[in-house]
Amino acid sequence: MNQLKGACLFGQSGGPTSVINASALGVLETALGQECVTQVYGCAHGVKGILEDNLYDVRQEDPAELALLRYTPSSALGSCRYKLKDSGQDDADYKRILEIFQKYDIRYFFYNGGNDSMDTCNKISKYLMSQNYECRIIGVPKTIDNDLAGTDHCPGFGSAAKYIATSCMEIYHDANVYDTGTVVIVEIMGRNAGWLTAAGALASFQGAGPDLIYLPERPFDLEQSMAQIQQIYQRRGNCLVALSEGILDASGKFIAEYGQDVATDAFGHKQMGGAGAFVANEVKRRFGYKVRSIELSLLQRCAAHCASQTDIDEAYLAGKTAVDLAVSGVTDKMVGFERQPGPVYSVVPKAVDLAVTANTEKKVPLEWISSDGVGLTQDFIDYALPLIQGETQLPFANGLPRFAQLKKIKASAPK
Amino acid sequence: MNQLKGACLFGQSGGPTSVINASALGVLETALGQECVTQVYGCAHGVKGILEDNLYDVRQEDPAELALLRYTPSSALGSCRYKLKDSGQDDADYKRILEIFQKYDIRYFFYNGGNDSMDTCNKISKYLMSQNYECRIIGVPKTIDNDLAGTDHCPGFGSAAKYIATSCMEIYHDANVYDTGTVVIVEIMGRNAGWLTAAGALASFQGAGPDLIYLPERPFDLEQSMAQIQQIYQRRGNCLVALSEGILDASGKFIAEYGQDVATDAFGHKQMGGAGAFVANEVKRRFGYKVRSIELSLLQRCAAHCASQTDIDEAYLAGKTAVDLAVSGVTDKMVGFERQPGPVYSVVPKAVDLAVTANTEKKVPLEWISSDGVGLTQDFIDYALPLIQGETQLPFANGLPRFAQLKKIKASAPK
Repeated sequence: MNQLKGACLFGQSGGPTSVINASALGVLETALGQECVTQVYGCAHGVKGILEDNLYDVRQEDPAELALLRYTPSSALGSCRYKLKDSGQDDADYKRILEIFQKYDIRYFFYNGGNDSMDTCNKISKYLMSQNYECRIIGVPKTIDNDLAGTDHCPGFGSAAKYIATSCMEIYHDANVYDTGTVVIVEIMGRNAGWLTAAGALASFQGAGPDLIYLPERPFDLEQSMAQIQQIYQRRGNCLVALSEGILDASGKFIAEYGQDVATDAFGHKQMGGAGAFVANEVKRRFGYKVRSIELSLLQRCAAHCASQTDIDEAYLAGKTAVDLAVSGVTDKMVGFERQPGPVYSVVPKAVDLAVTANTEKKVPLEWISSDGVGLTQDFIDYALPLIQGETQLPFANGLPRFAQLKKIKASAPK
Repeated sequence: MNQLKGACLFGQSGGPTSVINASALGVLETALGQECVTQVYGCAHGVKGILEDNLYDVRQEDPAELALLRYTPSSALGSCRYKLKDSGQDDADYKRILEIFQKYDIRYFFYNGGNDSMDTCNKISKYLMSQNYECRIIGVPKTIDNDLAGTDHCPGFGSAAKYIATSCMEIYHDANVYDTGTVVIVEIMGRNAGWLTAAGALASFQGAGPDLIYLPERPFDLEQSMAQIQQIYQRRGNCLVALSEGILDASGKFIAEYGQDVATDAFGHKQMGGAGAFVANEVKRRFGYKVRSIELSLLQRCAAHCASQTDIDEAYLAGKTAVDLAVSGVTDKMVGFERQPGPVYSVVPKAVDLAVTANTEKKVPLEWISSDGVGLTQDFIDYALPLIQGETQLPFANGLPRFAQLKKIKASAPK
């Protein structure tokens, strides 16, 4: 084993999830237990905390409070959406990062996030190598979107999928109570990949979920969808639709843009929202049906009270594996999961090249979308169902979740 | 005891809740066990099922499946929003109801709903008395809105409050992750009474909830609220606002109307929606802050996975008590709860005059709103906290809730 002594730094980036802190706990607990790890720091707001020399001293946290991270949603250390420029164009940020790493003698760096965060992680890793600064760098995946390449699935997806399927099932029950008929449109997150919206099918397969599911993987045809909604409504007196915020037509125009202009964030992503409202309005305008448009909004990524225990356990495992790999000498990788063959679900963690996962997007395979384009096949159910198994063991106090309250004491550099 | 032999009819009306079916189970199980009850029927879609001679035969349901009603959201028998005319004006519906009651020999009638449903229940009760048709009639309260007079609180509120407080707490965690600042507006149900929105304070009292809470009980001043939001944002870098869909200004104009026209439902209620979006847009327009508007929408009343076990137990008790009262000779009443004095929370059921509860609305006492108008006092917390205690024992199958699937077999009249 290639023993490397030094401090460990952990950061979180991108949109939070219900289980990203379970990964944090996996990293932090495992790092705290390593003889070769001299100190454990957390970034305040991801890479921005490095640039601003704003790190937390994790050893000063109460271990019992830290342990509650397993069930606490959102990024406990703070997140950011900061995009590093290419070091060839502008290396100011990279020089600053190297300076801070040297100041704190950081030799282990773990970065917890999605595609963009893995891009950040990859760039830092390649830059430090180019500067011959020895540091083991492992990405810890998270994203509710499940769009990271190189892994069977991504921590965060299972809990979001469980929340979405549960909510769709509950809405299905609610929306069917009157004999007067309603069309309910549930808009679900997912700019380019439809994994989250597809999770609605887990409820449909149990007989109480969306009648129609529209993913961004297939072009959305407004006329066809109106005919489909009308047909379902006429047949069973109600219609429940699940659609991705990012559905677009054959010309590549977002349905959300049909009704409104869209803004653009720092990564050049279009800010979505509005596809569900637009479709609901169209249904009302054309058919006069009673309609309701529901956006699951932030709760998809933070409803820890409805998290999947399988997802929580795997998120922790991803964090723990990252430290184990780094300590054993691995660097410049992301932790991924390999699903094992056989009838009983199991995964083993593996190391994936950071470059593979950075900035690629894994979409729902077209062959998992039913031929009519409005449902998912058994293959998708077989894939997703194991990921939502198990109810969270989240502790409650006073009738509400008892989430971790960290002290977040600012670290000072070692002498 | 005044023994009365005959059939029992149970119906559900108005908007569903997470626990209305627990009340249904309380009625149905208790009625099925009564010697004097010759048959147990359920109304398909409330009073409309009576008018259309569309009743279900409850004895044909599998008892184990029926028992799952305890944890199943929404109105399992179907609901309606049908308003009976005054019998003095038009007694056609009443004559039809009497005809159906005679046809099935219905001598026990239980109606499960909110204000409007208690009005229906009251009108049927008074009419049947005027016709000397002996029938014991008891209303079983339900409403997430908690606005029924004559009872300490109403089954359905505790679960909605638990879901709202939990969601606010989770959104609070999520909305605080970036260092760039966000204003999140959560719009919560409640046309005239602010009980549901006030439930957000249960999270605030635990240090992770809305900074500002606006109820319809106090006039909403747009300029003042903008100053309050700006002040919070400048102080802590983020701001979480909870507001009722029904907030209105000092002139009585709904804030939702500021931005849009509103439609009107069969009871003359204005259809709400849009107050949150309006306030969010104002914040963005005036200050340029990043904003997000979230409507909790239908999930407030159907998120059974986050129900309060206290509420579930009380909802069942309300149904059971209704039958016990009727069998013992009581009629023309609604079941209410009387909170017992002392440090440990407990309630005892009681009989309340139907006329008291019909069409009155109980609002949040003004003295429970903090003097600055944007929070709740300890008195409110002491009132509401016991109602959200206990996590639902809802069974799961395949990672999703296992809700009741009734056969709903149409009843035929006895020979």
